[in-house]
Amino acid sequence: MTTETAKHGGTARRIRLGMVGGGHGAFIGGVHRMAARLDDAYSLVAGALSSDPARAAASAAELHIAPERSYADFATMARAERALPDGIDVVAIVTPNHLHAPIATAFLELGIHVICDKPLTATVVDAHALVEVVRRSGCLFALTHNYSGYPMVRQARSMVAAGELGEIRVIQVEYPQDWLSSKLEDSGHKQAAWRMDPARAGAGGSLGDVGSHAEHLVRYVTGLQLTEVCADVSTFVNGRQLDDNAHVLLRYANGARGMLWCSQVAPGNANNLKLRVYGSKGGLEFHQEHPNQLWFTPLGDTPRLLTRAGASAGMAASHASRLPAGHPEGYLEGFAQLYRDVAEQLHARWQGRSADPLACTVPTVEDGLRGMQFIAAVVASSIAGGRWTPIE
Amino acid sequence: MTTETAKHGGTARRIRLGMVGGGHGAFIGGVHRMAARLDDAYSLVAGALSSDPARAAASAAELHIAPERSYADFATMARAERALPDGIDVVAIVTPNHLHAPIATAFLELGIHVICDKPLTATVVDAHALVEVVRRSGCLFALTHNYSGYPMVRQARSMVAAGELGEIRVIQVEYPQDWLSSKLEDSGHKQAAWRMDPARAGAGGSLGDVGSHAEHLVRYVTGLQLTEVCADVSTFVNGRQLDDNAHVLLRYANGARGMLWCSQVAPGNANNLKLRVYGSKGGLEFHQEHPNQLWFTPLGDTPRLLTRAGASAGMAASHASRLPAGHPEGYLEGFAQLYRDVAEQLHARWQGRSADPLACTVPTVEDGLRGMQFIAAVVASSIAGGRWTPIE
Amino acid sequence: MTTETAKHGGTARRIRLGMVGGGHGAFIGGVHRMAARLDDAYSLVAGALSSDPARAAASAAELHIAPERSYADFATMARAERALPDGIDVVAIVTPNHLHAPIATAFLELGIHVICDKPLTATVVDAHALVEVVRRSGCLFALTHNYSGYPMVRQARSMVAAGELGEIRVIQVEYPQDWLSSKLEDSGHKQAAWRMDPARAGAGGSLGDVGSHAEHLVRYVTGLQLTEVCADVSTFVNGRQLDDNAHVLLRYANGARGMLWCSQVAPGNANNLKLRVYGSKGGLEFHQEHPNQLWFTPLGDTPRLLTRAGASAGMAASHASRLPAGHPEGYLEGFAQLYRDVAEQLHARWQGRSADPLACTVPTVEDGLRGMQFIAAVVASSIAGGRWTPIE
Amino acid sequence: MTTETAKHGGTARRIRLGMVGGGHGAFIGGVHRMAARLDDAYSLVAGALSSDPARAAASAAELHIAPERSYADFATMARAERALPDGIDVVAIVTPNHLHAPIATAFLELGIHVICDKPLTATVVDAHALVEVVRRSGCLFALTHNYSGYPMVRQARSMVAAGELGEIRVIQVEYPQDWLSSKLEDSGHKQAAWRMDPARAGAGGSLGDVGSHAEHLVRYVTGLQLTEVCADVSTFVNGRQLDDNAHVLLRYANGARGMLWCSQVAPGNANNLKLRVYGSKGGLEFHQEHPNQLWFTPLGDTPRLLTRAGASAGMAASHASRLPAGHPEGYLEGFAQLYRDVAEQLHARWQGRSADPLACTVPTVEDGLRGMQFIAAVVASSIAGGRWTPIE
Repeated sequence: MTTETAKHGGTARRIRLGMVGGGHGAFIGGVHRMAARLDDAYSLVAGALSSDPARAAASAAELHIAPERSYADFATMARAERALPDGIDVVAIVTPNHLHAPIATAFLELGIHVICDKPLTATVVDAHALVEVVRRSGCLFALTHNYSGYPMVRQARSMVAAGELGEIRVIQVEYPQDWLSSKLEDSGHKQAAWRMDPARAGAGGSLGDVGSHAEHLVRYVTGLQLTEVCADVSTFVNGRQLDDNAHVLLRYANGARGMLWCSQVAPGNANNLKLRVYGSKGGLEFHQEHPNQLWFTPLGDTPRLLTRAGASAGMAASHASRLPAGHPEGYLEGFAQLYRDVAEQLHARWQGRSADPLACTVPTVEDGLRGMQFIAAVVASSIAGGRWTPIE
Repeated sequence: MTTETAKHGGTARRIRLGMVGGGHGAFIGGVHRMAARLDDAYSLVAGALSSDPARAAASAAELHIAPERSYADFATMARAERALPDGIDVVAIVTPNHLHAPIATAFLELGIHVICDKPLTATVVDAHALVEVVRRSGCLFALTHNYSGYPMVRQARSMVAAGELGEIRVIQVEYPQDWLSSKLEDSGHKQAAWRMDPARAGAGGSLGDVGSHAEHLVRYVTGLQLTEVCADVSTFVNGRQLDDNAHVLLRYANGARGMLWCSQVAPGNANNLKLRVYGSKGGLEFHQEHPNQLWFTPLGDTPRLLTRAGASAGMAASHASRLPAGHPEGYLEGFAQLYRDVAEQLHARWQGRSADPLACTVPTVEDGLRGMQFIAAVVASSIAGGRWTPIE
Repeated sequence: MTTETAKHGGTARRIRLGMVGGGHGAFIGGVHRMAARLDDAYSLVAGALSSDPARAAASAAELHIAPERSYADFATMARAERALPDGIDVVAIVTPNHLHAPIATAFLELGIHVICDKPLTATVVDAHALVEVVRRSGCLFALTHNYSGYPMVRQARSMVAAGELGEIRVIQVEYPQDWLSSKLEDSGHKQAAWRMDPARAGAGGSLGDVGSHAEHLVRYVTGLQLTEVCADVSTFVNGRQLDDNAHVLLRYANGARGMLWCSQVAPGNANNLKLRVYGSKGGLEFHQEHPNQLWFTPLGDTPRLLTRAGASAGMAASHASRLPAGHPEGYLEGFAQLYRDVAEQLHARWQGRSADPLACTVPTVEDGLRGMQFIAAVVASSIAGGRWTPIE
Repeated sequence: MTTETAKHGGTARRIRLGMVGGGHGAFIGGVHRMAARLDDAYSLVAGALSSDPARAAASAAELHIAPERSYADFATMARAERALPDGIDVVAIVTPNHLHAPIATAFLELGIHVICDKPLTATVVDAHALVEVVRRSGCLFALTHNYSGYPMVRQARSMVAAGELGEIRVIQVEYPQDWLSSKLEDSGHKQAAWRMDPARAGAGGSLGDVGSHAEHLVRYVTGLQLTEVCADVSTFVNGRQLDDNAHVLLRYANGARGMLWCSQVAPGNANNLKLRVYGSKGGLEFHQEHPNQLWFTPLGDTPRLLTRAGASAGMAASHASRLPAGHPEGYLEGFAQLYRDVAEQLHARWQGRSADPLACTVPTVEDGLRGMQFIAAVVASSIAGGRWTPIE
């Protein structure tokens, strides 16, 4: 549980980080910055923080970015940073979805690593193309499905992998919110506006924003391959352009069955991601709003409450923890774990060694592609009147 | 919150109750008897408690039933009781599902009221026929979807009816258990054996045993009309004859959408019925294992925890309560509420007055028919590969 | 988990029960009646239900008590019932505290067993005298510290006795309520009025009403001997005659230390009795408002949630259960367990056999005496300015 | 909810931070560093991280502290930094308790601000002296009673101040842990060793480590003045030199009464600080292990669950939040809030303006003195056999 970056191979320099998007008024950009700072493995030294030049410059100044490294657009930034002797090592992309692919491509083609917010792109076509770009580039590409950074999610993953649940039979995953129960996108709310605009968000509203997290979380914890979906996608708020609720049946390659519910119109749910996994030998429950806990019931035995850094927390959970049990860690710490793991992966590359395997579960561009295929299949299934639709 | 029976029209005599089924080794028969006793509105005076005559007699003796009113079969019992000047007023039917219809018919045709366990029958055909018998008989027929007797379920129903949730948009209902995670029916476990035998249980395994409760609970609380289902029904335990897990998408006449999950292979879930209802103005959550509580969040406001007999409990909840707040009531008290309400309905008939409207929400034979139609549609949808299937 | 009374030695007759107190407007009388009915081991056949003759008669009629066995006063009732060939076996006393002793004495001296509400008496002197009367009488005397009837309380007791917690070090017990946060006794509220009247309640307000339950629960679960108390007793509501809050430090003979808090002025607490026991090998937590659960953490291991009728429930819990896991039992079922255990004790006497040891933990008159000594010591300690005061 | 430092008066430079203590093997030093980094308001540029010079140098290198600003002792560091044109603005002191006073004094006397871990000192005498030093110095002195940085603790404070609870009557505060249930200090565990050594920890074991947090939390939330304590302090683990459990009765100047329990021998409690405040108009409950929530029950009304950034969160909570509701913040974020508030206070000084009042509730040296007086009075009361003992 060291909190500094030098764990492997002596003192490591701070990684030079740039950011595209995330200027004033954004949400997730600030999250990425706090995540990057927490373990002191990064320095934010460059940015194209806004498409509005004045906003970009003001935002950069507040962030102690030197004026000459605050750029008006991402393409300029990529070229300029590539040309610097101490240019950025990695760029964080925190724009609306449709810009992820062009921005990532610009940096990857110049050999700059990428940390990208989710969902991967706005279309499956873009996602396929981006996978190719990443492969060609040889760069590291991390997708911030941040819930995979929670210690107890890692604990769950390791327990499933170790067979503690037996053969997985049933998956229940849900991600309800309530903040779009009325037509917030008409009120000038920037976050709501782009998320419900197909041109910027892609084919999914709640599906892209939260459903894609839910789909990934199942994959991350269980490793199961999703083969087919059967869906009923809805828009409850009048005049809204994208879905605000989706009900999805799931079938997995091993015979497991599941349900996924995502919603942004469920009053009383702030950010209520919950995953339950049931196998022939036991069951697990994880609740994002109480991320320091994981329920585990071995079949026929007493339920037990595993806690982060508690008696039953294994290596995977410890790797992702910073504090003793009972000192709650939260969303930022989970998010920061992805940054910390990326740092370890980069330092390992630079030092010509293998990275700590516990740091190598960060979601990848392929995860992002599967997420886009999931969204596409769900939308297609629903349009087809609820037909079972294979994942491409 | 009176606990005695004389609420209306002076002291009322105890209702004479008979029982078919429920001898040694049964579960739900004992529950019905405790429910009937709790409020002192019934005397158990006759029974055909088992198809095994020795067991029937021994069971009757333990229950203080006079030997001459312990019968070897239900048909004899119906005729004999009908002929007595102080014969039973009402019979409780607590047998496996396939016997509900013939037994109920025998008593109804002789003018004896019926309290019947759920699901209504083993087939939709039987259910239709039984509806007709009930109508012809003029008798009262109560179906023990007992969760509708919980005070906070009644509170939820009254809040939805009063418009506190606005237009209902999303329903999430689930009823997972874990006791059939292995093949218990092969071990001589009587309860498991008939529940997983199509000849006795009907077309639904977990669907009939617990799924039907979930479907009814939605209907009871919201009053919404279920129009279509799209289902994926599974049997995870090898060699099992009926489903042990079902995933169902729901569509309602008003445009609401929902999901229903029932399972008996979900380790860590004892009897984990949970209902969530989301509307344009608020959301409700009810959890059967904590039945003295109901969560309510008005849209944009703070979640509040309504408690049985607490500050926000309304008339419907009070009608179904016996104790002050903080003194937990449970499953038996909820079950007993149906018996108490039936007693009020019968006394009102006999006294030529209208029954207390709060006592008139007990599930009926029509509810039972709809439950059977639900099971049939779910099974049909799943067999058809997940086609949206209308409720008959 | 049989629900009928014939468990031992064949079919047993119903025990004939009388009641003193508990007419219209009372609370605990109705609780005792429901508890007596639940397992069908008793028939309520006589009563002196109110000191107001008209109320007594009307109450009796509603309860199906024959008019000739509804008495105007307890002394008449005792004599008359003693003279009947089928007179009552046992009397339930559900009056204000100051009447417990004279009523119990009247029945005990005629050889009639007693089930008495708590606290035992209004004074320690009365309590000592009553202990003597019970001993002389040879009768059974049960005190309804009802929380000792909860299955998970019995589970806790058996775990402590089995040494699963090691040597007990720390006790935290509390029983807050909020219903007397304002001066309810001035509003004509009958329950509040006698509880805050020293002439009827004795020296303790909240101490007698709820504190005595808390003190007993510790004793019941741990068997520890309380030796000294140091207390700060308060009356927060102006003009109130008895305490509405008490803070007490506890010392036990084995060296354990503890805290007891009782209150009736703590908004948000309905009936929030909670017990925590910590030993050298583990800790337990029980919460009355969720009585189907018991938390157990072995030192250095993962917390586990034991549930009534769940995988880790032992014989003592099973003895006191009626339903499978996940079907919540509540306050009435716990209360009924005392009645069921008393029935077993009486049948065993009558049959000349030893009673089931699991049925022999019902609180006794000696428990009641210790409770009165506790109240007296707490009051004395507080008056003395917080001096450590031995339990008499 | 801005996450950057420039809120007032344009872009502000990062504050230059030094640290004394917190080298390899320490716990709280790493916490301070993460807290300082989170909001990007500080740069850690100097340190005397360990009394072991090699460890100090290695630790400094990992933290990117320039070698020439890694010092072998705090006195040298204070003088050297004072002499630099860009020397540290503020020093964080994260050593065992007995060193707080001499270290703080050394820096304060040179005009360097101090952020100091708690408890303030090892003795009351030292605490008094330190208060004087701070006053003379004119410097800012912040004491990291970090739980006062939680948004919902701030919410609670503002609600009490606004009169939403009425007159406060009853306080229940507790801080149980279990990590010292066996004699960990004998096993080479550095954290345990100094905490149970009177020479380094002072007069309190669990009292200083956790009890002092509990005492402060009450003061912070309610503003009540503690006047007297009556205590029973225990050491359960054989051979331990300081207390591992304390039970304390509390009296406040306004007539409120309370109980405080701290323990490090309560199995099942990781870091279970809980505060409950009851007044004439309502009650509040805060639980440190779920810091995004605050229960509030207005007297006679329904309990409501206030959440960080939820509908009822007021300005004080918003000031201390970084994320939307449902995105859990934790211990580090609460800790970081003190650093963020100190930054605002310093920038305000430098800019010659008043600091944001919401940033001015950080615990002070006077809070620390009161905490030391509390510990001393508790120990004295217990030694005197439980006498009510005034706070000095």
